Amino acid sequence: MSEQQKPLALVVGAGPGLGDALLDRFASGGYQAIGYARNSRQSVNDQDILSVDLQNIDETEDAVQHLLATYGVPKVIVHNPAKLIIDPLAETTIDGFEAAWQSMVLSAFVIAKSALPAMVDAGGGSFLVSGATASLRGGGRFAAFASAKFALRGLTQSLAREFQPKGIHVAHMILDGILDTNASRKLHNLPTEKMMQTDAVAQTYWDIAHQPKSVWTHELDLRPSTEGF
Amino acid sequence: MSEQQKPLALVVGAGPGLGDALLDRFASGGYQAIGYARNSRQSVNDQDILSVDLQNIDETEDAVQHLLATYGVPKVIVHNPAKLIIDPLAETTIDGFEAAWQSMVLSAFVIAKSALPAMVDAGGGSFLVSGATASLRGGGRFAAFASAKFALRGLTQSLAREFQPKGIHVAHMILDGILDTNASRKLHNLPTEKMMQTDAVAQTYWDIAHQPKSVWTHELDLRPSTEGF
Amino acid sequence: MSEQQKPLALVVGAGPGLGDALLDRFASGGYQAIGYARNSRQSVNDQDILSVDLQNIDETEDAVQHLLATYGVPKVIVHNPAKLIIDPLAETTIDGFEAAWQSMVLSAFVIAKSALPAMVDAGGGSFLVSGATASLRGGGRFAAFASAKFALRGLTQSLAREFQPKGIHVAHMILDGILDTNASRKLHNLPTEKMMQTDAVAQTYWDIAHQPKSVWTHELDLRPSTEGF
Amino acid sequence: MSEQQKPLALVVGAGPGLGDALLDRFASGGYQAIGYARNSRQSVNDQDILSVDLQNIDETEDAVQHLLATYGVPKVIVHNPAKLIIDPLAETTIDGFEAAWQSMVLSAFVIAKSALPAMVDAGGGSFLVSGATASLRGGGRFAAFASAKFALRGLTQSLAREFQPKGIHVAHMILDGILDTNASRKLHNLPTEKMMQTDAVAQTYWDIAHQPKSVWTHELDLRPSTEGF
Repeated sequence: MSEQQKPLALVVGAGPGLGDALLDRFASGGYQAIGYARNSRQSVNDQDILSVDLQNIDETEDAVQHLLATYGVPKVIVHNPAKLIIDPLAETTIDGFEAAWQSMVLSAFVIAKSALPAMVDAGGGSFLVSGATASLRGGGRFAAFASAKFALRGLTQSLAREFQPKGIHVAHMILDGILDTNASRKLHNLPTEKMMQTDAVAQTYWDIAHQPKSVWTHELDLRPSTEGF
Repeated sequence: MSEQQKPLALVVGAGPGLGDALLDRFASGGYQAIGYARNSRQSVNDQDILSVDLQNIDETEDAVQHLLATYGVPKVIVHNPAKLIIDPLAETTIDGFEAAWQSMVLSAFVIAKSALPAMVDAGGGSFLVSGATASLRGGGRFAAFASAKFALRGLTQSLAREFQPKGIHVAHMILDGILDTNASRKLHNLPTEKMMQTDAVAQTYWDIAHQPKSVWTHELDLRPSTEGF
Repeated sequence: MSEQQKPLALVVGAGPGLGDALLDRFASGGYQAIGYARNSRQSVNDQDILSVDLQNIDETEDAVQHLLATYGVPKVIVHNPAKLIIDPLAETTIDGFEAAWQSMVLSAFVIAKSALPAMVDAGGGSFLVSGATASLRGGGRFAAFASAKFALRGLTQSLAREFQPKGIHVAHMILDGILDTNASRKLHNLPTEKMMQTDAVAQTYWDIAHQPKSVWTHELDLRPSTEGF
Repeated sequence: MSEQQKPLALVVGAGPGLGDALLDRFASGGYQAIGYARNSRQSVNDQDILSVDLQNIDETEDAVQHLLATYGVPKVIVHNPAKLIIDPLAETTIDGFEAAWQSMVLSAFVIAKSALPAMVDAGGGSFLVSGATASLRGGGRFAAFASAKFALRGLTQSLAREFQPKGIHVAHMILDGILDTNASRKLHNLPTEKMMQTDAVAQTYWDIAHQPKSVWTHELDLRPSTEGF
């Protein structure tokens, strides 16, 4: 099957951790997988990752138009950018507060607005969104991050209620734990079994993206077996 | 592989709808699958369904002891009894209120208390619980059913927090829709695509029961794509 | 105004801590205030506290019938029994699990069923229920208590949705902290400012019981300013 | 008592409905009450309402600095701007999506950041935030509004956890119904008893703002007795 004939999966926020794992899982499952990230690169298994600054609305809109024109209509979109800010209010800047919302919420709105109508016309698909512990709980130094993750959850619910009857499965994945990536290994010094393996997370996204229409999950949580909650 | 060597799955509340589908899914996946239901019978694919009155504590405890002695320690338990009561308060009897709680909550407590320690000793497993729309919302004529389903959710969370660090994955599956069964077809007169297919639901239970330890889901919802929520 | 002409407030679970404070607040606000507790006594300000074993359904039903016949129809009922059980599953007995549910959930159901229709006929009133941290979170050693408190919350929501349109304000008060009572001072050794003052809690119940019909609160939380959550 | 000596209450988003009622309630309770609204005016009882464009960060920051310099440190801040947008995704503009977030979320962040440290230094106070039905549920045509109201709830939780131990009571008031204002009477054609009276809502804000430190409410809902939920 040529790339042209494969279904298309777009991973927005395709960083070196979960982003790569998602691209690999969809590619190995028969998709053409494309990523958006701050810096263009090839994923570990050679999927294209295009440079998109998700805080820039115009650039994000253009990127979706380019995708639709060049690669076609996605069957699956995963929205996965993370802009973690953990600071007391006095040290949380207005710029940081805005950047968290722009990159994680406004980008999801712009991409949904740009791509979902075409996906409806093409017969449906899936729109999966990465949440976090802070999607459900506004912790004491999480003013920027929790506010943005709450916003993203509200947006995702609204999209589910508008678009599920039109054939787009919209799901909110709550990642309640630390992903096992090179970056987090340096940062947290946790034993491996206390972290979420990115390929296992990606497998869950795959399963949810392919649920039959009679049993669509809107929200689920994921955490290591040893994680307190 | 003989039945003795297969892992064991117990489906509590193995009615003709989802119960059969769960037994079949686990049997076809290589498990010895056993059911508990009010009336003993063979499932459609010949798994044993034993007669247990889940409102009777002693009988339920005995059934678990019998299972452990005869079939061994379960790898997976699915708790799935449903006692639906929809009535205004004036017509909800004390007997009905108690029966809903005994069959759906007390039975889960007794079975967890009887089986989980053995499962921990045997190296872990999964304990999956069927919730409903009424697990999250106490509707106007759902005093008995919602109260019991809320109770079951609280119990399930508590079990997760105590037993996940010991290797038992505890998950709460929120079934937010009508299952497509013979009974519900007569009752609701819904088109098939508005109902949840029991084999698709069972597949989700299977997926959750087999998540790797780094990504355990505690709670998810399931509903048809066309279901309002 | 004679006792006969005063509105009637019933406090179910009128222990020496919050029970007394509630009886006092309603008495000082012009109510005839009556309590139910395990042992009959006079409250600190001389309100009658009648002996009722809330785990005993028949006794509880009889107590409500006696109240209606002798004192008249309540304007306000506060449901406040607490049966705290904190134990790992292995040490949580079936008796304890049942007792928690009977005293905190079944008693609320029986009292609502016995009294709400008369309150509707008498022109309305308030039914306030004491929740706890465990109403929203099933902690690791709270299988019995959290399960019962979840159940009570589901029941309370259902009662609100059925009875608010009929003029009964139903509210769920989440007490997220330690009440400052003689018993808890011995148990917890907390500084006073880390505990909830019972007269302040009772004042909030009073405020909620007297909200005008255009702004009824169904659920609120209460905790000391210093309490983590 | 001169205005200088009175405690100061600031109502952000002081429109002609709930804004006026809040200014009046705090003024009649002995506060100097000041409002921010798009257009400067006098409230019905002559409190100053200053012109502030809450979508403009610099203007909002300047307004708080002006307030602190001219009127002193607030004892109470109520954050109440509403920017209702109800549209399908295709008709929700990027400008509208941003405006909802700027006026309802970013403004709360900027005002909290500008005023809370001074309030802490001055010995404490209250910061009350107006939520809505859409704070808890992202409805099908509420992408902009629900996303912003979810964000505001997450921010408010974070502020509560950071600032309550420092003496600032932070509360989230969920207004689950239509306020009875001139504007909503024209819009909804509801009977009066189906709407929330603004003076009754304001009284609840007053009560919450003056709870003693041992019983602070973080979140409550308010709705007419006849409102479905």
